[in-house]
Amino acid sequence: MKVLIHKEKREVVDGREFIVAKAKQYFVTDLSKDVHTLYGTISQQDLSKPSGSVIKSDNGKEFFLLDASFIDIYKRFRKLPQTIPLKDIGLIIGETGINPQSIVVDGGLGSGALAAALAHIAKHVFSYEVRDDCIQTSEANIKMIGLTNITVKKKSLYDGIDETGVDLITLDLPEPWKVIPHCAKALKTGGFIVSYSPSVPQVMDFVNEVHKHEELLYLKTVEIIERLWEIEGRRVRPKSTGIGHSGFIVFARKIKS
Amino acid sequence: MKVLIHKEKREVVDGREFIVAKAKQYFVTDLSKDVHTLYGTISQQDLSKPSGSVIKSDNGKEFFLLDASFIDIYKRFRKLPQTIPLKDIGLIIGETGINPQSIVVDGGLGSGALAAALAHIAKHVFSYEVRDDCIQTSEANIKMIGLTNITVKKKSLYDGIDETGVDLITLDLPEPWKVIPHCAKALKTGGFIVSYSPSVPQVMDFVNEVHKHEELLYLKTVEIIERLWEIEGRRVRPKSTGIGHSGFIVFARKIKS
Amino acid sequence: MKVLIHKEKREVVDGREFIVAKAKQYFVTDLSKDVHTLYGTISQQDLSKPSGSVIKSDNGKEFFLLDASFIDIYKRFRKLPQTIPLKDIGLIIGETGINPQSIVVDGGLGSGALAAALAHIAKHVFSYEVRDDCIQTSEANIKMIGLTNITVKKKSLYDGIDETGVDLITLDLPEPWKVIPHCAKALKTGGFIVSYSPSVPQVMDFVNEVHKHEELLYLKTVEIIERLWEIEGRRVRPKSTGIGHSGFIVFARKIKS
Amino acid sequence: MKVLIHKEKREVVDGREFIVAKAKQYFVTDLSKDVHTLYGTISQQDLSKPSGSVIKSDNGKEFFLLDASFIDIYKRFRKLPQTIPLKDIGLIIGETGINPQSIVVDGGLGSGALAAALAHIAKHVFSYEVRDDCIQTSEANIKMIGLTNITVKKKSLYDGIDETGVDLITLDLPEPWKVIPHCAKALKTGGFIVSYSPSVPQVMDFVNEVHKHEELLYLKTVEIIERLWEIEGRRVRPKSTGIGHSGFIVFARKIKS
Repeated sequence: MKVLIHKEKREVVDGREFIVAKAKQYFVTDLSKDVHTLYGTISQQDLSKPSGSVIKSDNGKEFFLLDASFIDIYKRFRKLPQTIPLKDIGLIIGETGINPQSIVVDGGLGSGALAAALAHIAKHVFSYEVRDDCIQTSEANIKMIGLTNITVKKKSLYDGIDETGVDLITLDLPEPWKVIPHCAKALKTGGFIVSYSPSVPQVMDFVNEVHKHEELLYLKTVEIIERLWEIEGRRVRPKSTGIGHSGFIVFARKIKS
Repeated sequence: MKVLIHKEKREVVDGREFIVAKAKQYFVTDLSKDVHTLYGTISQQDLSKPSGSVIKSDNGKEFFLLDASFIDIYKRFRKLPQTIPLKDIGLIIGETGINPQSIVVDGGLGSGALAAALAHIAKHVFSYEVRDDCIQTSEANIKMIGLTNITVKKKSLYDGIDETGVDLITLDLPEPWKVIPHCAKALKTGGFIVSYSPSVPQVMDFVNEVHKHEELLYLKTVEIIERLWEIEGRRVRPKSTGIGHSGFIVFARKIKS
Repeated sequence: MKVLIHKEKREVVDGREFIVAKAKQYFVTDLSKDVHTLYGTISQQDLSKPSGSVIKSDNGKEFFLLDASFIDIYKRFRKLPQTIPLKDIGLIIGETGINPQSIVVDGGLGSGALAAALAHIAKHVFSYEVRDDCIQTSEANIKMIGLTNITVKKKSLYDGIDETGVDLITLDLPEPWKVIPHCAKALKTGGFIVSYSPSVPQVMDFVNEVHKHEELLYLKTVEIIERLWEIEGRRVRPKSTGIGHSGFIVFARKIKS
Repeated sequence: MKVLIHKEKREVVDGREFIVAKAKQYFVTDLSKDVHTLYGTISQQDLSKPSGSVIKSDNGKEFFLLDASFIDIYKRFRKLPQTIPLKDIGLIIGETGINPQSIVVDGGLGSGALAAALAHIAKHVFSYEVRDDCIQTSEANIKMIGLTNITVKKKSLYDGIDETGVDLITLDLPEPWKVIPHCAKALKTGGFIVSYSPSVPQVMDFVNEVHKHEELLYLKTVEIIERLWEIEGRRVRPKSTGIGHSGFIVFARKIKS
């Protein structure tokens, strides 16, 4: 897979700067065909040039050709509503310290975005999902990105967890408090539960339930707000397109074997 | 290394709940000595019990004993002022997609916190630092956490980067715009520069300089605000201890070989 | 002027709740004509009923009839881009303590929104504006809301301020630092300058200039983020429609006569 | 009452700037005595000079002398925990459009800060409070600031509201949902209820209760985050002292007489 990048072009007319061509990126999955872009057609032959080449469309516009990396493909995932964004995934990775030795259970596969981001770092991810549409979407995403260490299980986490000695369990479920006993059994001592919920009452019920388990330690509940900034000459300000809410992230830990 | 966890204890008196013992964690590096805590002394023999054991202090208080994991040790790092926090490290990991194959150059080692968090996931991290105090602090931190894939170089990134084919360069420097040409040479095509600066003028100068390099693509500037929540019965609210500013995170990418 | 309010209607079907009619508000300026709504026509006779009446459209839908208050009319103002929002106006009122005795100079009238909000509380507002379109828009807005204590001057604040003994000067100008000497002369001792700018470099230049004036005291620079919450059964969360950036608010004060 | 302001003094030594004297403000209530400050003693005679005078302490340090205005005195109020801050008071004033004709009922007087800020603009404020310590604190505050249009009632709002035709009722109560029927009776048509609560469950219960009253329209729930910025040469960044949470602000309106 390749990425074609057309940079923004500006021109100064009468002392004022104008954008004469907008930035554009094209993600190319089929390398056997010409690519038609807003700025002309890229020939199929040019697509086989090495990553980092500058190629031209049939009307002379410059494009940068890049081999698609993990993050390029990840950003083209077909997303379902309420897919957990990278700002939140990053915090989960950072706060739990998962690494290439980690075993992860992912409750509520969704689009597979979280599973893929974790599998990219961890040893293996076991994903539980009951909805066929989610399984289909996520399997297509996982195949596209080439990950082979995700096991998708058509099972509900509400019914139990097969794995044991797990380092991290991520929950993206409507009623996460119901699976806490399963998590407590599946986790290794020192392992983490991270529950991701859009609404406050879900967080309240989850935290209350964690407190009832002596073998679990409630750590914290966090909300991550991401502000994009515009940095453009003297126009330096938070972007006026806002920062939506994604979800609250609750961290708990197994402290008793 | 071990962690001793004493859970909060509450009691209901006349229908109102009171905290009778506060939560406490002790990080134990020397397992050959008794540990003196606010809730009594833990005997050295008990420290050798398996992770997940419940042990008691000499006055009968319960502690959970845990093997220290990466994140436990990381949180005990000796930090220097303006150490980049996990919320920001997480975003860097998430947005660049680094993984066990990645080569990272870290400009401005500081306390070694960022280097350690990245080395925990990446193949190798090369850290540049000129200040002796930073090198000392960070080498002690790196030794404590047991990472062997960080090379600390007593060199300034302002003078150049030795490595090539680098996947990610992180900059935590007062004048990051001055090293952009070095970064452009060191990065592999598709690789990322991530510059971390506390102040807006640094971001402005850095982004302006990136725009002058045809081989680089400016991606975005982001600020991450982390809100901690209190979830405690009906007391459900953002914590009143506030959210400090850490830094602005600028992402750029090499798109031309 | 009147407001017609149609409340949201919900129905429970098979145990799940559905919105069967969305909430709607109609602002009626011409009371001599029938009003055509999404939920039927309201007859002109019904519009003369007292505030707080429940009236019905020709197809039987209920509406609440309200006399338009200041805030209803204010919210119907024709707004120009970057009209300062109520969250920021509120802070200005709160932090400067203006009241029915205050004299205000408003530099950069825009749509008249800030002038109207201040004039609603203060004794008199003198608004400076050079752009004809702004003057037209704002005069229409001021007339609609019935304020008689705003004097609109077709003059640039960059050329000076006619008034003296002023309690508050609000600046919504591209280069606010250029009018600081005029402000220092116009203000009474203890009076406030509040400068509102969307971008950081404007704030930097303004604050630097304030520091050069011995008779002025720089107080603070503030940014107000407003988060709307959804409170709907168990769906309790920050709204996913985000929080845009409006502007930075800089406060300074005259401390020497 | 007077304010004494000592400006920050800086000196450049070897090309680097140092703060040689920190900014300080002194609030003077007793004008018949000398004032002892960190930078020397101000003689009692000098205190009678006109507002805006520059006076000197006995060791030659410069002070600016200012007549205390409303906002100066307000900021010296003895505050009780969880006093509603100006950022939130400002929004209430802005969104409800209160003005010199408005009648306000204030449920839960606390320190009197909200009552004073509203009375400064409105015609009259009726404050309900049962706690003697609050009444004492707030009466001292109100006296100091010289407001005569606040009536403090030693009564609980839970027991009813004496006034009718009220424009705005502010609630700062632990269980605000219990007084909604009283509010609905006391408000004039078009009047506002604004409830201020630190915790989410209070907001949930309040909003649910509002929905049960046909004569009330729920408007919105808002949270205001205030970020202070440091603007100091090239040090331009959000302050690292954070932004605490104050409360959620719920707006509702009476729409049926």
